[in-house]
Amino acid sequence: MTLQTTSYSDLVNVSPELVRTAIRSGSYTGHTAGLAAGKLQCNLAILPECYALDFLRFCQRNPKPCPVVAVSDSGDANLPTLGPDIDIRTDVSKYRVFKDGAFAEEVDDIQALWADDLVTVALGCSFTFENALLRNDIPVRHIETGLNVPMFRSNIDLEPAGPFAGKMVVTMRPIPKEQVEQAREISARYPHAHGAPIAIGDPAQIGIADLSQPDWGDAVEIKAGEVPVYWACGVTPQNVLLDAKLPLCMTHSPGHMLISDVAENAETTILPPKK
Amino acid sequence: MTLQTTSYSDLVNVSPELVRTAIRSGSYTGHTAGLAAGKLQCNLAILPECYALDFLRFCQRNPKPCPVVAVSDSGDANLPTLGPDIDIRTDVSKYRVFKDGAFAEEVDDIQALWADDLVTVALGCSFTFENALLRNDIPVRHIETGLNVPMFRSNIDLEPAGPFAGKMVVTMRPIPKEQVEQAREISARYPHAHGAPIAIGDPAQIGIADLSQPDWGDAVEIKAGEVPVYWACGVTPQNVLLDAKLPLCMTHSPGHMLISDVAENAETTILPPKK
Repeated sequence: MTLQTTSYSDLVNVSPELVRTAIRSGSYTGHTAGLAAGKLQCNLAILPECYALDFLRFCQRNPKPCPVVAVSDSGDANLPTLGPDIDIRTDVSKYRVFKDGAFAEEVDDIQALWADDLVTVALGCSFTFENALLRNDIPVRHIETGLNVPMFRSNIDLEPAGPFAGKMVVTMRPIPKEQVEQAREISARYPHAHGAPIAIGDPAQIGIADLSQPDWGDAVEIKAGEVPVYWACGVTPQNVLLDAKLPLCMTHSPGHMLISDVAENAETTILPPKK
Repeated sequence: MTLQTTSYSDLVNVSPELVRTAIRSGSYTGHTAGLAAGKLQCNLAILPECYALDFLRFCQRNPKPCPVVAVSDSGDANLPTLGPDIDIRTDVSKYRVFKDGAFAEEVDDIQALWADDLVTVALGCSFTFENALLRNDIPVRHIETGLNVPMFRSNIDLEPAGPFAGKMVVTMRPIPKEQVEQAREISARYPHAHGAPIAIGDPAQIGIADLSQPDWGDAVEIKAGEVPVYWACGVTPQNVLLDAKLPLCMTHSPGHMLISDVAENAETTILPPKK
């Protein structure tokens, strides 16, 4: 059998359903930035039910890094409030599997790993507010330059819940000084995608020693007249899950998000039920 | 011992902490509308841990009637993200206790009923957006006339989770036609307090036969030039809890809300941790 492959450019401007179909069939395994414009994309955490209550408490207490946009029934691979046809075992282009707090493997689907006690928690992602910044002519340096957003472990304590605790991870985007307030206002409209910045300006105020040495992602240039602006980052819950050393948990791979049918600017992330 | 009693007027314009102190001591057992101006007040659902994951899934799927603003640890009577001194067993002026889906009793504190497996879920309440409407000179009829807000069982299906399911309860407020859009915009700013209206105008569109016959609360006059506007109501989760026939659950009594230290217009409902 010859596997049909789909390129990124084939998927630009197609519906979320068609992007998911290409991913589900295995014909597309790339990243999802810029696909399904206007639709909410999601970070994923898949974990055993016995940890799900504490993880939801953790997310509720840390809504800026961990904005919950959907929670599955236990053992149910569907997420009907995000899209009527979503199957979480196949509809993400790359997954990471962790066992006892250590990286185990990266896979294209998790059908073989699925179990009746697994719960999927989908969390909003920064693509949503980045798209809104770009629509409002606010530059986003790492996108302009084709890099990954720089991410830093801050000194901001998270509110713990059960085995879940740690420090907040933040992203940094240099914003022209005269557009910082506008960037703040725009991102605040997306509470399901990290909301307003966590901090603005001096990195030392949140325990970052050197902006040229990100903990994850790529360093980006801060030009004259630009101010570093910090947002809560979806890597936070991934780190916290890892540190909790669950026997099994799965996440998307960075940049390989779940694409939903929910509009980025919808009031809630819940699709109306199909009649 | 003589029990010192505190009147409503003694508590107007005092801090949330002092209102809670009066309630905790048993000296104030009245309603909380208009107290602790500018602070978030909360609906309460207290239920056994074994139902908490499904109840949180239910709330996540129905964010307009069930906006979660805090979740306690199991067996922990404190809610530190809403206020450093809150004890949920004593800090609400009246509670309702339900056993096996039937009303059992109304009490002033629940210390005798507390158990190690209980989880408190606090939900936003309509006081928040009503205060915002009043600040913007939009009249709120039931407040003007000293009545309870009229509540109706709609035909809107809730997204089920585990044993939790049913129809949405809505409140109705008549708004002058020319202020309806402004009322929508203002309430949409408070996603933690039911957000934007669910429907505007004809009650038949959401299955309400007669606006003069509310299912709960009092009928209010709709004057010439006014449009009935419907918001999701915090009675929804109470009904759903009742219908689920849990062996034990507890709620606040209507109008007797938990007063928090969180500002009504804060970006999240999570207080920063005390250093």
